[in-house]
Parts: sequence; structure tokens; C-alpha cells
Amino acid sequence: MSERPAPTPTTETQHAAATLDGWYTLHDFRTIDWTRLKTVDATARQEMIDEFVAFLASLEDVEAREEGSHAFYSILGQKADVVLMVLRPTFKELEQVELALRKTRLYDYMIPSYSYVSVIELGMYRGSGDGDPYENPHIRSRLYPTLPKTAHVCFYPMSKARRDGDNWYTLSMDERKDLMYRHSMIGRSYAGKIQQFIGGSTGFDGWEWGVTLFAEDSLQFKKIVYEMRFDEVSAKYGEFGDFYVGNILPKEELGTFLG
Amino acid sequence: MSERPAPTPTTETQHAAATLDGWYTLHDFRTIDWTRLKTVDATARQEMIDEFVAFLASLEDVEAREEGSHAFYSILGQKADVVLMVLRPTFKELEQVELALRKTRLYDYMIPSYSYVSVIELGMYRGSGDGDPYENPHIRSRLYPTLPKTAHVCFYPMSKARRDGDNWYTLSMDERKDLMYRHSMIGRSYAGKIQQFIGGSTGFDGWEWGVTLFAEDSLQFKKIVYEMRFDEVSAKYGEFGDFYVGNILPKEELGTFLG
Amino acid sequence: MSERPAPTPTTETQHAAATLDGWYTLHDFRTIDWTRLKTVDATARQEMIDEFVAFLASLEDVEAREEGSHAFYSILGQKADVVLMVLRPTFKELEQVELALRKTRLYDYMIPSYSYVSVIELGMYRGSGDGDPYENPHIRSRLYPTLPKTAHVCFYPMSKARRDGDNWYTLSMDERKDLMYRHSMIGRSYAGKIQQFIGGSTGFDGWEWGVTLFAEDSLQFKKIVYEMRFDEVSAKYGEFGDFYVGNILPKEELGTFLG
Amino acid sequence: MSERPAPTPTTETQHAAATLDGWYTLHDFRTIDWTRLKTVDATARQEMIDEFVAFLASLEDVEAREEGSHAFYSILGQKADVVLMVLRPTFKELEQVELALRKTRLYDYMIPSYSYVSVIELGMYRGSGDGDPYENPHIRSRLYPTLPKTAHVCFYPMSKARRDGDNWYTLSMDERKDLMYRHSMIGRSYAGKIQQFIGGSTGFDGWEWGVTLFAEDSLQFKKIVYEMRFDEVSAKYGEFGDFYVGNILPKEELGTFLG
Amino acid sequence: MSERPAPTPTTETQHAAATLDGWYTLHDFRTIDWTRLKTVDATARQEMIDEFVAFLASLEDVEAREEGSHAFYSILGQKADVVLMVLRPTFKELEQVELALRKTRLYDYMIPSYSYVSVIELGMYRGSGDGDPYENPHIRSRLYPTLPKTAHVCFYPMSKARRDGDNWYTLSMDERKDLMYRHSMIGRSYAGKIQQFIGGSTGFDGWEWGVTLFAEDSLQFKKIVYEMRFDEVSAKYGEFGDFYVGNILPKEELGTFLG
Repeated sequence: MSERPAPTPTTETQHAAATLDGWYTLHDFRTIDWTRLKTVDATARQEMIDEFVAFLASLEDVEAREEGSHAFYSILGQKADVVLMVLRPTFKELEQVELALRKTRLYDYMIPSYSYVSVIELGMYRGSGDGDPYENPHIRSRLYPTLPKTAHVCFYPMSKARRDGDNWYTLSMDERKDLMYRHSMIGRSYAGKIQQFIGGSTGFDGWEWGVTLFAEDSLQFKKIVYEMRFDEVSAKYGEFGDFYVGNILPKEELGTFLG
Repeated sequence: MSERPAPTPTTETQHAAATLDGWYTLHDFRTIDWTRLKTVDATARQEMIDEFVAFLASLEDVEAREEGSHAFYSILGQKADVVLMVLRPTFKELEQVELALRKTRLYDYMIPSYSYVSVIELGMYRGSGDGDPYENPHIRSRLYPTLPKTAHVCFYPMSKARRDGDNWYTLSMDERKDLMYRHSMIGRSYAGKIQQFIGGSTGFDGWEWGVTLFAEDSLQFKKIVYEMRFDEVSAKYGEFGDFYVGNILPKEELGTFLG
Repeated sequence: MSERPAPTPTTETQHAAATLDGWYTLHDFRTIDWTRLKTVDATARQEMIDEFVAFLASLEDVEAREEGSHAFYSILGQKADVVLMVLRPTFKELEQVELALRKTRLYDYMIPSYSYVSVIELGMYRGSGDGDPYENPHIRSRLYPTLPKTAHVCFYPMSKARRDGDNWYTLSMDERKDLMYRHSMIGRSYAGKIQQFIGGSTGFDGWEWGVTLFAEDSLQFKKIVYEMRFDEVSAKYGEFGDFYVGNILPKEELGTFLG
Repeated sequence: MSERPAPTPTTETQHAAATLDGWYTLHDFRTIDWTRLKTVDATARQEMIDEFVAFLASLEDVEAREEGSHAFYSILGQKADVVLMVLRPTFKELEQVELALRKTRLYDYMIPSYSYVSVIELGMYRGSGDGDPYENPHIRSRLYPTLPKTAHVCFYPMSKARRDGDNWYTLSMDERKDLMYRHSMIGRSYAGKIQQFIGGSTGFDGWEWGVTLFAEDSLQFKKIVYEMRFDEVSAKYGEFGDFYVGNILPKEELGTFLG
Repeated sequence: MSERPAPTPTTETQHAAATLDGWYTLHDFRTIDWTRLKTVDATARQEMIDEFVAFLASLEDVEAREEGSHAFYSILGQKADVVLMVLRPTFKELEQVELALRKTRLYDYMIPSYSYVSVIELGMYRGSGDGDPYENPHIRSRLYPTLPKTAHVCFYPMSKARRDGDNWYTLSMDERKDLMYRHSMIGRSYAGKIQQFIGGSTGFDGWEWGVTLFAEDSLQFKKIVYEMRFDEVSAKYGEFGDFYVGNILPKEELGTFLG
């Protein structure tokens, strides 16, 4: 054990960066049981679709009142067929959306494939300026957002590495602040092309963050993630789960989508 | 092999920290088979709910006699729908709770999703004071607790790392004691916000500990786990399984929950 | 932390290599539910086959108009029975192929086993010459290809390593350019034996690339992958998923294949 | 490659420790399909139980003749409900027990959850004394044992690490002998509390050993595994699979257990 | 990046060892659906067995004509119940065996559990002597073998490590040749006890090789794999998948096996 350095004293430079926390978030990925759905006759299927459209409309009402938000997209490939992303002020309200979803008849044809629990988070590596940030309208619009309705979505969970060599959590605050600043510069260069929402999930789910990207041009998802991978924050410290991509699924097109 | 140091002699400084061990613990996470449950007619469903409420009431009787304790929560996301956490003096009594649960009709609609076996454990890195600690009322209340009924719960399993570089189990007792002291200081700063129960599971289940947190404010789960991640004990030595979070599910609300 | 070097300044030498991006690609691997398929009577089975052949013919029409391409192969072993690889200009058109496939009756006997989303990609480590590469006919034929119909196919996903020691993404552009050049020399020595299509999938799916090889001689798949494994790009930096190999499945032989 | 030392000559000091090998062992973990079992009427269920009790009795006959041994325990949590551990002189006889088990009607309600194939093994790091060890009555009683019927059981598979840093298989025989001696001293301190059976499974199953512990006090499982984890053999070189614990399930209590 | 050595020039010493490649190989592991099989009446079951025996006899005809070979064994434990290992000159012929197997009625009771695709391979680290090795009768008998019918079989997949520290693929040809020679000496010491067949699967399946061992004494599987694990080739560079072991299942005993 002689080569092990003495334990580093816990200093101010090593504490966790402060975060601002907004709405709780549930990503609910589901696979449609197409084969069983085909056995439903046309009338019953139309009723199912109508009922689900009404469920989506009820979410839109909440969004219109700015008491939450949501997004509904199809997903490419076999990992899932659709994702419902829901934002709400409390865990209990997320559960109530789950309960409402379960009551729909279409739910009986939606096989669970993946889900993610997080809370909209703003990292405060550079501070949050004067005054109570939770009263700052610009910050509020990012903590309690109305989600975009762009043509495409991308979701992935990620954590920061804690390997023997590269360990994000033993870097000093100054090192992390410097690295995150340069990382954020890449993000800013995609302004107008990509809107990004970070969900903090340490203590909530299997990774430390869940990232949701919205874009009109699906190629931008690859461009930003690939470019960031060469930045030290991702190159050394980024650990990524699976990526999900898809197309917006307006409730008017649900009937067509379900065939 | 020349670079390998001679085997370190086993000294007093490297032995395992003593623990105090209380009630055995089973976490039983289950997913409701909602689609099949919908096919049960209203009368039969009400009977199932009544029977399950009676089962929960029987657990409350045990708790009232201080012969065990339990907690029943819903879980957010697809990993599970509910968790029943049960504390009992022996493995055999845990099995008897399993048997009683299996006899309920609702059990037939509860698909297993995850479980965890452990024993309530108090680490004695700083000693346990004078006298038999098992007779100390304060210690007894922590080894044989009545679990809180807070609004929210969080569970996760964890182990200490044994990598080539960072290996908790080759640190000296003094190093571990020092690290754990600083780690516990973070925990203490959450007093009044979070109640924590550690289940030791080395030799019992797939990880070394199962941690259960109770809080009225669900955001505290993220705050404490994130803050601790920058502490050396977690940053270098903490390895974490999946996190489960949810809302309390009073037996009076079971009927509503089951729709 | 003293041994950690100061963060390397982000320089021009470390940026991501430019890529040219062509058609979006979906690999859809499926297992046939043989047991259930056997229960279909001969007439209904022939109708199913005819309908699926018509579906494949509709894909051939798209290919003939050079608005996309596809390949349909059987797969050896239990990982899958068939793969449909489809190339289209947009995510939305890929989804439409998925919808058309779902409408076939045979789809009800095709269990999902694996899928992969990517975009045909040309790495531009050595630049793309004068003029707009997207107008260069040679480059266009590689970005928007008509896939070969060779006797055999091989697919595998891969990523570049980001370990403590070997980390592709912290190499300089010059180092990567040099390594990729030598790597590509191995690929060129298989000209005439193997046709290779690289799908970039960073931000799209679980690995960074999906590689599809076509060959008349199936042994060439082993030869090229094994030889490349000794090249530094693969030896140190290549991380590989599962490999899928199989035989071409002409639509005229589908009836025989399905027994 | 210059930093790589010249290949170490294979010397006597690096060869594998000799082992003595006894009865082949199968651990067969199964989950009861409780929901389907409930649908069996009382008479048929009693017949199933009687038949299974007769099957267990036939295993007891083999044990009485000292031609094999077995243990039957319930398992806590969702990983399994019961385990049947069987010892026999040959692979073929283990298969015959599998065949006999399959013929029971209860087998149709026993879903496979985990299994392990090994052979009772005694490590001979310190030699086996004079004479043919296979004729030594003390050694024979450990190679061809009658398994205990203690209140509790614990099973886990394990391997020795072969990482870049800590690699058990590149230690010299003397180093391994020294480490194993100190490791065994911990085991001996549990004499009278725990009986341990090591199954060697290199070349037979997914780990290198399967360990089965028997105890009257279930807390001893945690105590010994936790204490050993600080010993260098486990701390640096031990890699562990999942742990299974449970209670003895006498055939007289099978009816009660099955509800 | 300063500590990273300049890229090693690709030299003759680092190229891939040449291999000789024989018959393509499919290992098809399957679990019997015993519960459903019990519901088949005696007459239908006998017809199923007769039909499957005829299928096996047709494979024996191919073997008699030396146009392929096969082995059929039971497997111990829950990972599988049987394995059919088939050797054929082409991928297409392997597929035809799959098609023939699917047509049997017993196939409907054989659940897929694992499979492996490879090609019989002889490593040529020491050269192959004068003349065309593919015309050498001794080599031909190893590339196009008739598989043994010993009492026991063992199968496992494996790869060579490419870790930061121990990386087989960056060793020089001379180092690998030297290591493989000593490794092969262990293998030779088991001549007469074990027959070994190596399937190369780089580019074909999830590992780089699939190893099949045949022996009359099942203990030899453990002895050889354990002894080799101390040899540098395995100790540092061997990465192993799951091990499968079992007993020969002559077609005359199939009826008994299926109960």
C-alpha cells in the first residue's frame, strides 16, 4: 500500500457544483404489440385511438396551463416504438400520469421497454448571477420549460467516469469548471440547431444524467455527440448508455402510425 | 512478477470493521400486470384489494408489537410498480412473509422485478461505547427500527471497489475509519431531511450493502447522493447498482392505485 | 491528484474528423417463430409469402429509382434468422418502411432480435479533394449506394476505446490520420473480395459505428477482421459488439426458406 | 512494446496447485410458478406433493447407501424459490437425477432460474500427507460427503482475478501457498459455525468455483464472507457472482411451503 | 499525450499468424420444453422421436460420405439440455441443416439457448511444412474431421485480451509464437485423454474462438483448463465465455432421454 498517497483533505475545491432543479421528468419508452393490436377490430381500434388522443389532449391542457409539459415521439428500431416524455412539479404528479396512461385501452398493447426518472437540472459551474435564480424568468423558462415539437428527438443516459485513472469526481472544482466551460462552448455552437434538456438522475435512476435533444435535422444529433466525444469531458469522463432516436408523432397521425 | 510487492503481513490495522446486526430485511419489488388485472371484474377486484389490505394490516400488527417493521411504496418508471420492504428477526420469518404474500390473490398479478436480502447494520468504525451495545436503547432503536412513513423512498444497492488502483479492502483500518468519518459528516448534514437504513448484504445478495432512504422532499435523494459522490468514499470506492424511487402507498389508497 | 497533467488545451489537432453523411440506415434482425408458423395452413402461408415478396418488390422499386436501397439475408445461428437492411434519405422514410413491414402478415411471425440505426458515412481524414464532395459522382455512389447482392453478409457494431490507457479520442488528429491510413491499407488489400459500408451511429444507437461487409466467399469476413485486429487501430482502440453472418435470401427462395 | 518484460520461463513455481476431486455436483435453483400452481385442485396438488416427497426419499436412499448426497433448501427473494444440490460419482448420474426430477409433476411448476456444475475439490497447497490420499478416510469423508442439514444454506460462484494489476494466475506457487494458508486460517476460525464445500468448476461452468456454506446461524454467512473480503486472497483476487441464501426445506414441510 | 510512444511501424513481426481453415461449424444449444412435451401423447411422441432419429441418421449419412460431421450431446444444468454440433463445407450447407432441423416436430419443443458459428482452424505459428498444406492428409484429417463419439463433451468460447496492460494483439509475432508453443505443450500432454477442435470465429460470432473438447473422463476438462490457466497465454491473455459440459446422447437413447 506504500504507493497510495495520503488521503486528500476535503477542501472547498472539491465540493459538488450547485444545481438548480426544475420539473421532475419521466421518459416512458414502449414497444407496441403490433401482432395483438392487429386482432382488434376497426371500431374498437378507433375507440382506442380516440381515447389515447384524448389522453394526449389532457396533457396538452396541463402544458397550456404551464403546469407541466410533455413530448410524444416514435422511436426507430427495435428498442422501442414510442416514447412519452413527461415533466411535472412532483413525483406524485408523475405517478398520476402513469396511472392515467394505464387506464387507456391502448396501454394494454404498449409493452414496457425502458424508462428514465430525472429532474430538469441547470449546472451552476459559473454561478447564477444576482438574486434568487428561481425568480429569474430566463432560468425559470429553462427549469419549467414547454418542450419543443421539433421533427426529431434523441435521448441517452450518461454518467461521469470514476475509473482508477480518469475520475471526474476527484477533480478539483476549478478543473471541472474549466472543462465544463469548454464543453459548453461546443453546445452553444449548435444553438438554433439543437435544443438540449438535461435531467439530473443521481439518486433517482441507473445513470447520473438523462439527456434529451430536439432538432429539425436529425443529422445534428450525430454531429454534436461526435464532436463532443473529442472534448476532454466526454473523451475521458463520459460514459454513455443506449441512444434512442425518432420522429415526432402528432396525435393527429396516431391512427396512421397504428395502422 | 518482480514489480509485485511482497505480500503485506496481515496486521490488526487491516481487519474488518465490527458491525452490529439487527433485523433481517427483504426488499420485494414487483410490477403489476395491469393488462391482466383489468380483466378482473369489479367485485373480484374489490375482494382482492380487501384481502391485500388485510395482509398489510397483519404486517402493521407485527410492527405495533415491535416484532418487525415494513414499508410499502409505489415505484416510478418501468423497473417496478411497488416495493414491499420487510424487517424480521430471522430468515425464517422473512420466508413466512413471502408465503403470506403468495397466498393473496393480488400476488397473482404481481410480477417479480427485483429483490434484495440484507440485515440492518451499524458500522462500528468509531466503537460502540461502554457496555453491551445490543442493550443500548439508542442502538436498539436503529437495529430494530419502526420504518418511517415519509412521502418518498429511495433504494439502491452498492459495493466498495476492489480495482487494481482503488481497493477499499486493502486500505488500513485507520484510513477507512478516517474516510468513513468524513463521509458520515455529509450524512449528518441531512439530519431531519433524510432517514437512512443500511442493510449489510455481503454473503447474502449480489452487492455488499442495500441502502434505503426516506424523505418528505424527493429532491433530497439527488442532493445527498450527488454530494456524497464527490467524497472520496464514493468517488473512488463506491460502486452502485440501480436506483429505485417512489411515493408512499397507504393501504387506504391501494384501490385508487390499482384503478 | 498531483500526477494528473494540466488539462490539454483544445487545439486544432484534436478536433473531430469531418465526415460525409449519406443515407440513413436501419438493420432489422428478426427471428422467425417457426413453431407458430407451422400451424398456418398451406394456402394462408402462400398468401403470406406472396404478400412479403410483394413488399420486397416494392423495396426493389425504390432501389431502381435510386431513392434508397436494401439487402435481405438469412442469418446463421440463434441470434436471428433474417436481416433486412434498409437505406433511405430520412428518418421518416425509414419509419415508413417499418410501418410497411408491420402491415405484412409474415411480420406477425417475425420476433425482434436486434436492430441498428446509423447513417452511411465516409471519413474524411485525408480530405475530400476539390469542389463540393456531395456533387462528386464517385463520392455520391458511396454515400447513396445500391447495396451488393453477394452470397454472404456480415454485420457488427463497434466503438473506439476510451480507457485510461488507450483512448482514441485524446489522440491528436495527426496520430489518428496516420493510424487510419495504415488501417485503410488493409481494407484496400481486400478490394474485389469484400465491399464494406460504414454506418456512423454516434448519437443514434448503442455503438459508434455499424459495419456491413458483403462477400462471395464467407471466409473473407474472418480473414479481414482477424488481420485488422493486429493493426493498432483495432488492437488498441477497437471495441466490438456481436457479429452476425448469413446467406443471401432471394425473394424467389423465401417460400423454401420458410418451409 | 519495449516496456514489456521478456516472457517469464515456465518454472516449477508457477504450476497449478494439485487438487483432489470427489463427487460431481449440480446446484439446481428453481422458481415456483405460484400463480399456476394455485389453479391445481387440492387432490391433484396433494398427489404432486406426495410424488415429489417420494422423489426426495429416493435421493435419501442413495445418501443412506453413501452413493451420493443432496440438500434441499428454500431460497429468499426473487432469484429462486428452492435449490436442490446433488452430489454423484459421475456426470451421467447427475443427468439421471435431472431426468428423475423432470418426470415429477411438480417439475412442471418449477421454472429454471440458475444452475451450477462443479466437482467437490480439495486444494492441496500444503500437500496431502503420506500414502494415497484417495484412501485416507478423513479425506474421503470430505470428497464424498454426506451434506449437512443445517437450518440455513448460502451458495455463491467465484473466480480468481486476472486483471492487468492483480493476477492470481501469474503469482508463484509459493506466493499462492502463503496467501491461501492465511486465508484458510479465517475459515478455520469458523469451525463449528460453518461447514464449507468447494466445488471446482474451471472447465465446467461460468466461474472457477462454486462455494456452498451450511450454518445454523444465518448471520455467520455475512460474518465470514465480510471478514474474508479484507484478506488479500479475496480483497485483490476474489471475483464473486450472485449470493443465494435460504432455509432448510424438510420434505415433511413441502406441503406447507407450497401452500 | 506526451507519454504516448510514437506509433509503432507495422512490421513483419506484428502480422497475423496464418491459419488453415476447414469446415464451417455450428453449435446449436437448445433447451427442451419438458412441460409441453409431457402433454404429447405416447403415439405422437414416438413419431416425433422416430422422425428425429431419422434426421440424425441423415447426418450420419453425410458423415459416412465424409462430406461433413456432427456430434449430439446432452448438456448438464439449466444453460441447455442438448447441443447439436455440425460441420459443413459452406455457410449455405449449415443453413440447410438448420432448415432440416426446423422441419422436425421435436424442433417445436426445442427452445434456443445458445449458438456459435465458427470454422475449424489450425494455427500455423510454426509453419505448415513443405507443399500445399490443404493436400497434406494429416492436416486434411484435422480440417475436415469426423468428430469423436466420446462419453463427454465440453464447449466454451474465448478471446484474446486487448486491455491497456495485457494486449495479445500488440505482441510481436515472435513473442506470440513462443507463448503459443509452450501453451501447445500443455495440450500435447493430454494426448489420448482429450481431443480438441478449435473453431475460429473472429468476424463470425461474439468471441474469437470456440473450443470443443471430447473426453472419456469428464474430469480431464477441468484438469486441462485449470492447468492452462496458469500458462501465460491464458493467465494474461485468455478471456472466456460460459462453459458447457455434457454426456453423449446416442440416437438409440433419445427416447429414454425424452422420457
